[in-house]
Amino acid sequence: MSIDVKSILSDNALNMRRSAIRDLLSVAVRPEIISFAGGFPNPDSFPVDDVKEIVQEIMEESPTVALQYGTTEGYAPLKREILKRYNAEGMPGDMDNLIITTSSQQAIDLICRVFINPGDVVICGLPSYLGALQAFYSYRAEPIGVKDEEDPEVVIEKLIAEGRKPKFIYAIPDFQNPSGVTMGIKERQAILDLAKKYDIFILEDSPYKEIRFEGEHMPTMYSMDPERVILLGTFSKTFAPGFRLGWILGRKDVIERVVVAKQSSDLCTPVFCQMIGAKYLEKNYFEKNIVHVKEMYKRKKELMIHAFEQFMPEGVTWTNPEGGLFLFLKMPEGYCSRELFDLAIQENVAFVTGDSFFCDGSGKNTMRLNFSFASDEKIVEGVKRLALAIRKMMDEKSK
Amino acid sequence: MSIDVKSILSDNALNMRRSAIRDLLSVAVRPEIISFAGGFPNPDSFPVDDVKEIVQEIMEESPTVALQYGTTEGYAPLKREILKRYNAEGMPGDMDNLIITTSSQQAIDLICRVFINPGDVVICGLPSYLGALQAFYSYRAEPIGVKDEEDPEVVIEKLIAEGRKPKFIYAIPDFQNPSGVTMGIKERQAILDLAKKYDIFILEDSPYKEIRFEGEHMPTMYSMDPERVILLGTFSKTFAPGFRLGWILGRKDVIERVVVAKQSSDLCTPVFCQMIGAKYLEKNYFEKNIVHVKEMYKRKKELMIHAFEQFMPEGVTWTNPEGGLFLFLKMPEGYCSRELFDLAIQENVAFVTGDSFFCDGSGKNTMRLNFSFASDEKIVEGVKRLALAIRKMMDEKSK
Repeated sequence: MSIDVKSILSDNALNMRRSAIRDLLSVAVRPEIISFAGGFPNPDSFPVDDVKEIVQEIMEESPTVALQYGTTEGYAPLKREILKRYNAEGMPGDMDNLIITTSSQQAIDLICRVFINPGDVVICGLPSYLGALQAFYSYRAEPIGVKDEEDPEVVIEKLIAEGRKPKFIYAIPDFQNPSGVTMGIKERQAILDLAKKYDIFILEDSPYKEIRFEGEHMPTMYSMDPERVILLGTFSKTFAPGFRLGWILGRKDVIERVVVAKQSSDLCTPVFCQMIGAKYLEKNYFEKNIVHVKEMYKRKKELMIHAFEQFMPEGVTWTNPEGGLFLFLKMPEGYCSRELFDLAIQENVAFVTGDSFFCDGSGKNTMRLNFSFASDEKIVEGVKRLALAIRKMMDEKSK
Repeated sequence: MSIDVKSILSDNALNMRRSAIRDLLSVAVRPEIISFAGGFPNPDSFPVDDVKEIVQEIMEESPTVALQYGTTEGYAPLKREILKRYNAEGMPGDMDNLIITTSSQQAIDLICRVFINPGDVVICGLPSYLGALQAFYSYRAEPIGVKDEEDPEVVIEKLIAEGRKPKFIYAIPDFQNPSGVTMGIKERQAILDLAKKYDIFILEDSPYKEIRFEGEHMPTMYSMDPERVILLGTFSKTFAPGFRLGWILGRKDVIERVVVAKQSSDLCTPVFCQMIGAKYLEKNYFEKNIVHVKEMYKRKKELMIHAFEQFMPEGVTWTNPEGGLFLFLKMPEGYCSRELFDLAIQENVAFVTGDSFFCDGSGKNTMRLNFSFASDEKIVEGVKRLALAIRKMMDEKSK
């Protein structure tokens, strides 16, 4: 007899979903495929020489700190540098308001762990970040997306009347993944007003904020109401994802709970990586290098948009982000991007089907395109191929 | 109005326990205190020059791999090196049987996440590893410890009759934390027989196995039944905890579920750290350095035991581990190590009270002592102080 694993899985495990992106990426590994599917920063954006210098210094100056256990709260010099920057931007917080996490994915996970019971409701965007949706499902939360035509207040009031007050509102106000859209100041204020009226936390996921390459700087929602907003940050898009450094800035009574949850999750984030992050900030390399990252991504986005304008058939629309790594493409209603995917793979180009980001199963005619990773040449060539695939599908349908 | 955090916590969060060690350590930070409380490897055991060489090589050879996202399953060269060693020791497994985790604490957490529903039973030792107990509580599992005088089969049969079949048996067969005790081959076989008879997984936590400094090598339980044993490994005690590298070796259908659970937990373990681990094994530095670690810890253990023999009052007993980092001290029944703790702090010496490791609240007369971290001189001086504190308590009681 052998153990039947499926029969002894937790209910949460049964509700977990594999990442659709992962499965798409496994199809898109052939070298001839131009992939807009991943969410990788461009390797040319990595400050290799700076990191070389930093790791050498760490190994000279304090190797036994780097190799030892650290505290669950995070490496103090890194926390101080992060706080210094937030405080300078008018965002309050001291050491007890901040915890370093092993990636901002862990930050989302820990917040769920602290707040979510099975069946709890979380308000999110339509579309919203897939990794957050995955975390919600893994705790059996029910993410509820607010449709464009809906009034979020009505949605929340209805839920409260049903005894299902949302645990928090999940938002990515700057250059949202996947849509690339940025919330205006009025929209931010409206959500904050709701949070205040109904006493609901807002989880502000902010991985791209520093990659604004055009348009006007927006204040974080956290800066507008630090009592009700929990801010998530990370180095993954602005410095390097290989160190898996994220953080949570929020109320002390929340951070305290997150610390206890993190203790049994992974005890502490790699000290070696945290020391690299700390030095990177101390030396102001962050500020120096982010300039190039923004230039590069602006150029790539413009190339992609320009190629859309040249090659995309009538009826296809797109967002035009002011920062970040992603934009959203929309075909006319009735077309399905899952169907398109197979045609696109035949043309050697890949993307992520948009429906994966919609917790209500809508968005079938949408797709997410990453513009940070591919080379300039491949961006243009990839858009050509994608446009060809869309054309083929449209021609087929109109027969 | 402000959000009342406590009122919206998840049931799991409400069941989480802060680490007792953490709280004890916060008392034991004064420099004059000799602490046997932590579980830190000795910094002199860190192969600083080797790591220096390795990080330099990584930054020369493949920096953009090190700084980029990796796969959830783990960095393939690291996995291959780990498997090579297990296979050479007769432990089966290929790439699909292994996942790299961000510390073995995460490994325990992910296994709980995959298998535990609230109220589920886990069988563990009395005492057992505190970090594992914390993870169990955080999923609202009920750890049930088998007493020395109990027959584990009777315990399991009773649970099954109650419809509460244990999800798994948690064991640390080599140099257990906290007791320092190693399971004999018959004991291992007896537990495996139970696992086979009742079709229950065994979670074999194996962080210290490579630090055997005396006695006879024991086969892992995994090698005796790879279908029913899930093995957890880590570099934290044998190389360096600062990289937070752990792993799980087990059945493919289990690893597959763990991969999905890890996706939403932290996406992947720091690639930079994994590359360091891979090179450390590729260059056989692990085998070279572990010799010194074992020598050092053997010397420190012997120093501590010798000091016990010299200074401890009649009635105090201790375990004499053949490896690892910890040993267990026992006072006669009726004495309480929590009470002793305050006296010990007055004498400037610290330890962990043993009851924290007993899920049934017993073990009040026990304490865990770490012998890996303190200098040789401090080990002797610390034992002297501890013996004095115990003597004072005994004198007080006998008045």
